[in-house]
Amino acid sequence: MCGTDNPASINKSSLPSANGNGTRSPTCSSDHVLNLEQGDPAVFESYWRKMGDRCTMVISGCQLMSYISDFTNICWFMEPEFEEAVRRLHCVVGNAVVDDRYIVVGTGSTQLYQAALYALTSPGGPEPVSVVSAAPYYSSYPEETDYLCSRLYKWAGDAYEFDKNGTGPYIEVVNSPNNPDGTLREAVVKNRGDEGKLIHDLAYYWPQYTPIIRLADHDIMTFTFSKSTGHAGSRIGWAVVKDKEIARKMSKFIEMSTLGVSKDSQQRAAKIMGVLCDGYQNCKSANKSDDLFFEHTRQIMAERWERLRQVVERNQVFCLPKYPKQYCLFSGELIEPYPGFAWLEAKEGEEIDSQKVLRGSIKVQGRTGRRFGVAEKYVRISLLSNEEVFKEFLERLSTIKSMSSNGH
Amino acid sequence: MCGTDNPASINKSSLPSANGNGTRSPTCSSDHVLNLEQGDPAVFESYWRKMGDRCTMVISGCQLMSYISDFTNICWFMEPEFEEAVRRLHCVVGNAVVDDRYIVVGTGSTQLYQAALYALTSPGGPEPVSVVSAAPYYSSYPEETDYLCSRLYKWAGDAYEFDKNGTGPYIEVVNSPNNPDGTLREAVVKNRGDEGKLIHDLAYYWPQYTPIIRLADHDIMTFTFSKSTGHAGSRIGWAVVKDKEIARKMSKFIEMSTLGVSKDSQQRAAKIMGVLCDGYQNCKSANKSDDLFFEHTRQIMAERWERLRQVVERNQVFCLPKYPKQYCLFSGELIEPYPGFAWLEAKEGEEIDSQKVLRGSIKVQGRTGRRFGVAEKYVRISLLSNEEVFKEFLERLSTIKSMSSNGH
Repeated sequence: MCGTDNPASINKSSLPSANGNGTRSPTCSSDHVLNLEQGDPAVFESYWRKMGDRCTMVISGCQLMSYISDFTNICWFMEPEFEEAVRRLHCVVGNAVVDDRYIVVGTGSTQLYQAALYALTSPGGPEPVSVVSAAPYYSSYPEETDYLCSRLYKWAGDAYEFDKNGTGPYIEVVNSPNNPDGTLREAVVKNRGDEGKLIHDLAYYWPQYTPIIRLADHDIMTFTFSKSTGHAGSRIGWAVVKDKEIARKMSKFIEMSTLGVSKDSQQRAAKIMGVLCDGYQNCKSANKSDDLFFEHTRQIMAERWERLRQVVERNQVFCLPKYPKQYCLFSGELIEPYPGFAWLEAKEGEEIDSQKVLRGSIKVQGRTGRRFGVAEKYVRISLLSNEEVFKEFLERLSTIKSMSSNGH
Repeated sequence: MCGTDNPASINKSSLPSANGNGTRSPTCSSDHVLNLEQGDPAVFESYWRKMGDRCTMVISGCQLMSYISDFTNICWFMEPEFEEAVRRLHCVVGNAVVDDRYIVVGTGSTQLYQAALYALTSPGGPEPVSVVSAAPYYSSYPEETDYLCSRLYKWAGDAYEFDKNGTGPYIEVVNSPNNPDGTLREAVVKNRGDEGKLIHDLAYYWPQYTPIIRLADHDIMTFTFSKSTGHAGSRIGWAVVKDKEIARKMSKFIEMSTLGVSKDSQQRAAKIMGVLCDGYQNCKSANKSDDLFFEHTRQIMAERWERLRQVVERNQVFCLPKYPKQYCLFSGELIEPYPGFAWLEAKEGEEIDSQKVLRGSIKVQGRTGRRFGVAEKYVRISLLSNEEVFKEFLERLSTIKSMSSNGH
């Protein structure tokens, strides 16, 4: 799932401004707050710009007008071209099993998360089913679980805590690589027999962020166009589902929630994924690897992490997680993870409010660890901005010499 | 709100098949079930085909990638071009006040209905707020209200019944013109002081379906691209909202539900609405009125109703509602409503199951009155199919000579 929520709470001085071609250019003057709270994937825009008109989508006024895509599919509002592109993309990347699996399209993986909660629960239970995820967990899970005060399910917090003290039926969300801290994860709650069900949120399980350590094969796996290729504005996600009845219930949820998913965006996603996959089929030569999406964007992420680690090590105020190199099935190499977020931890003391310090001293807006279920000495910073904003962030970060002397 | 739900339950022999340009052609052979249960707006496709490339949308691979459209707007995920087009469209048609009102974009009006329920309720009440609508009410309201078993609100059925016997806080949904029966409506529950709140679902309050009898000015009014221009596949709706806090809460709901609304579809809707409005500004001459969307489509609807009434009067098995002519502010004439659905009532007896009869005798799939909270002698039939399907429907309907001898 994405790393963007509650953007309306951001100071307006950090607003991006629109330019002519539908993208936004940032304001980087030192007076302005640098908004790195959301995971808006602007970093990938330059790649798609370089692709020129190869991904251009043309839709005439009389196309895609019906509600219906294919009544013979459980997910009747899914464009066949979209399903085909999703299956092809997973085959090219090798990050998830799709053969003999159902695909369900959603309005972003946000909707699919809720569809999965609906599909895994039933009315009439004595208590809502507990929904848990290991802390630090994605900050939007609690809100997305509880905002409608459902009797079907309720947010129950940290999965480690639930493993020790929780009882009754539960759903564990396994976010891998995890947002905010980038770790590859497995389920935490153990030995509960049939009481537990799993949702695997694999939004960041793509080669630009992480080694592809295995072909994922879980009951419900969710992915999003926002993080795979960077097209967040299209609001397209998909789930790969083992069980037919679960796929049917998830589709039913989306029918009741939004009566389907934008066909315009499904077709656009199919086109863009198709061009991406064509790249791998047409130009396998090493010379051209910069033209390939995952190689190109992984290179950008690797460079960003190198620059970031240099600054963080130099000023000795924060530390960053260390990630082990692992063998990547996609690249055939031992490689490091390069997560989409920096999960900064203040070195100085347990009670430091890192978000407040960054905001107060260098006008950088991150998201506090508290929102992820952990201490406020942690802060999450998006590394997915465009280059100008990322560079400005590093410059500002390099000016912090200690936590206590910086507006705390 | 639209007239499409649960299409997956339809017999597969009635499936539309895809043709090359993203639209679907029906199968009309007499062996096949004619699916007129959903309100899929295929009738408008020919108009947009005639428009050629004037409405063609072109999006390059690097555009519309951000989650964010405009942080200065309460509805931060709404494309400014979409908002502008919506305001302009209402100004051209004169069907709703938009000055000093907030616009909230949604993934179809289905999502906006739920956003409104969320915005009009608060956690912690002793009982869920009752949601009512006058029977016959839109068949999806009950399910869309109750599927998540919310503690915030619950479906409470017919508003007339609630007016007599109901107590406590409530939300009344006023669907005008009403789906299924096409009547222009006002709120039913009276004299409850501050206990009641209203949602006006004005999906069909457009000149092709109804005289525009006044400039609507209600607290929350919802509209949809599906029924205004016929672009159901784009899943775009909007609400016109008086109160800032309600607009904020509705936007918050959409943020939590789907983290915004497809920008591709918002931009496409803006383009299509813009071309529609340009028509009115550029060719006001009467000679060219067939080029104007509402005149053209109203003419089609008027012809369909004339042909339908002839068949229904001839075979004397069903009756149809009679609608009074009313003065239309848009056309400046006294005109009849031409609803998107035929609301057929069996003449013979109270206990007739009209849906079953149509299905059994002429293989036409409608939706039973039961789903709309009334007797099963009623059945709703979509009049929004393409011409081939509509013609086939009339031919089959003309063969029914009595209810009892037709497979009941």
